[in-house]
Amino acid sequence: MEYLVCTGCGKRRDIDVFCARCPACGEPLEVSPPPGGAVRSDAPLLERYAAFLPAGALGLGRSPALTLGEGNTPLLHLERLGEQIGVPRLLVKVEGANPTGSFKDRGSAAGVQRARVLGFSRVGTVSTGNMAASVAAYAARAGMQAVVLVPADIPRAKLAPIVAYSPRLVGVEGDYGTLYGRSLELGARLGIAFINSDDPFRVEGQKTLALELWQQLGGQVPDAVVVPVSSGGHMAALLKGFEELHGLGLTGRVPLLIGVQAAGCAPIVEAYRHGRQAVERWENPATIARAISNPLPPSGNRLLRAHRRGAPLQFITVTDEEILAAYRLLAAEAGVFAQPDAAASLAAVIARQKDGSLEDKTVVAVLTGHGTKDLTPLETAGIELPTCPLDKLAEALAG
Amino acid sequence: MEYLVCTGCGKRRDIDVFCARCPACGEPLEVSPPPGGAVRSDAPLLERYAAFLPAGALGLGRSPALTLGEGNTPLLHLERLGEQIGVPRLLVKVEGANPTGSFKDRGSAAGVQRARVLGFSRVGTVSTGNMAASVAAYAARAGMQAVVLVPADIPRAKLAPIVAYSPRLVGVEGDYGTLYGRSLELGARLGIAFINSDDPFRVEGQKTLALELWQQLGGQVPDAVVVPVSSGGHMAALLKGFEELHGLGLTGRVPLLIGVQAAGCAPIVEAYRHGRQAVERWENPATIARAISNPLPPSGNRLLRAHRRGAPLQFITVTDEEILAAYRLLAAEAGVFAQPDAAASLAAVIARQKDGSLEDKTVVAVLTGHGTKDLTPLETAGIELPTCPLDKLAEALAG
Repeated sequence: MEYLVCTGCGKRRDIDVFCARCPACGEPLEVSPPPGGAVRSDAPLLERYAAFLPAGALGLGRSPALTLGEGNTPLLHLERLGEQIGVPRLLVKVEGANPTGSFKDRGSAAGVQRARVLGFSRVGTVSTGNMAASVAAYAARAGMQAVVLVPADIPRAKLAPIVAYSPRLVGVEGDYGTLYGRSLELGARLGIAFINSDDPFRVEGQKTLALELWQQLGGQVPDAVVVPVSSGGHMAALLKGFEELHGLGLTGRVPLLIGVQAAGCAPIVEAYRHGRQAVERWENPATIARAISNPLPPSGNRLLRAHRRGAPLQFITVTDEEILAAYRLLAAEAGVFAQPDAAASLAAVIARQKDGSLEDKTVVAVLTGHGTKDLTPLETAGIELPTCPLDKLAEALAG
Repeated sequence: MEYLVCTGCGKRRDIDVFCARCPACGEPLEVSPPPGGAVRSDAPLLERYAAFLPAGALGLGRSPALTLGEGNTPLLHLERLGEQIGVPRLLVKVEGANPTGSFKDRGSAAGVQRARVLGFSRVGTVSTGNMAASVAAYAARAGMQAVVLVPADIPRAKLAPIVAYSPRLVGVEGDYGTLYGRSLELGARLGIAFINSDDPFRVEGQKTLALELWQQLGGQVPDAVVVPVSSGGHMAALLKGFEELHGLGLTGRVPLLIGVQAAGCAPIVEAYRHGRQAVERWENPATIARAISNPLPPSGNRLLRAHRRGAPLQFITVTDEEILAAYRLLAAEAGVFAQPDAAASLAAVIARQKDGSLEDKTVVAVLTGHGTKDLTPLETAGIELPTCPLDKLAEALAG
């Protein structure tokens, strides 16, 4: 039987009541462990991993699952770059290859599919970037309306990749930080399925990244997986996926998960370093990695609890300079153009390698989004174009 | 034995001499037909289809092939949109899911791999967009220098997704139209492998799209494939792939290929309609679909010849209004955000369906690039953001 269970107090809840957080303690709910079974390699993501997902609640097998072709993203071994930074077995998981250019598509596929099965005609999300575009795209694919709540003062330029899918977009005036909780209340009242960053079904979709790594590595898991952390939902999903594989006896261990935050907004790292049980709101976030700049991560306490119970989690920060250096290295040395936020994972590998602890390890850096989704660093740096008359080109190129 | 053969005069050439066009007649060279054989499903693109490619010239099997995870892009059945436009079996091939966001990556993988095998340390291309980013990315991956020639007056904003990969970028002052031919001469002289739009090895890479469609459709080919046409290299590659599959006895027929040009720059369509043997330069191109705005397509005559010898090719134009309507439909109704140029293929399906000739057909519209690569239509239209105070949100969303 599938059910929801609170990651905080452990209380069980009926899976057929749409709900993201425990009414008793307020912590995120998650879905019960799956039965396991065969992977259907050629099927769309949700059907491929149906045996590892809440297949009943997602209506898998009853009608074709929602898909835009998410998942199955490249896992590249960056030999040269790895040698250069002292981690020869450096792999990157290129999540920017997903349909809307970010890892969010795995979770949106599951979340919107779930909302459709429950009969919702509207889905919603609170996001200023990747998740907004992703939910809007999957809603369009499903023939549902997407409600996207953004801060009223968001730069208009950031809206184009969201607006493309014609969602109902609302700029909310007021404290954006309280909107996560408020959206869940409003959704319950108005019949809008809000699929935020750590929604239980989004987490199910996001955990397919762990399953895919296991498959792509021929039934093995890497030594370490490095992932940028914002709300904490993605990292919690990876941990859930790896722990379930281990629980099913399919892997010998759970890999070390290293969560990365920007030094300019690192509430989880801060709580982790001080041994606190709860994250505290980060005042005045300031980082170029906007997609991971979440001052009060809704799944922060959940990750701290997982760490306390012995899950192999570590958390570190990287500076904007380190992020930008990794961002440039990835594109110029390996041909992989990732969002600055995504490059934070490579920056963390480089930072961690300084003590030599990763050099003999198989390390996967998760690149959460495609570089084209945020060109700010390149545009800010300014783009120079050396010019040359056509008849002088031979001389210019000979040099 | 692998060899190059002129698509114009039929003369054979040594495959080991890097050369794109026939020294005798000036028409594009192509690679000899492949032996055929098993597909290696889990391997990177070039290795996957090694039996259908010039495996010797590409050095396949000798060392790992160059890859950024290109190919294996989603083939989506758009049921609702298909019903809406009267083509229930409408499929889209989402080439924007490739590593740099366009179909060009298939060809760049093959072209740069070939240059590497021949010992070049520099590769080049003449492009203002997708191909420039793609060649720069694969050169970076291969540890080679990329030389990218763009017009000196190119808007700086278009350069960010190219500059990301740190190529040697040169803005060329003078007649950009002559640069294609000039780059080949210069390349031969200076030892730069220019991999332009219809380079023989680029064409080999691009033809994997045909192979992939055949595989994704379970060993069948669709009735029709609709593809935007710029240089003509991509369409020639698709034809080559399908004709080779047919020649190997693997398919019962070659599908109808419908090439689409923008009404504001349609030199191939114009020559086709008038039964000319050669394309004439299009004066004053004017279309929003800049990626397919090529006034003198280097593989234009080659497509006209293929048509004359009986290959199932058709050519049509669509207006910018039709392109923009298809662009909006795709994202808003199906959740697929494509470049305006790419949406020209859906616009052509809609235009062609007006006479009912596609309604019982399986039609694949090739969406050549991702919407995030050119946000111009959205930015030009202007982005409105309705706002609402947090405490009035319930009323706003209730409506």
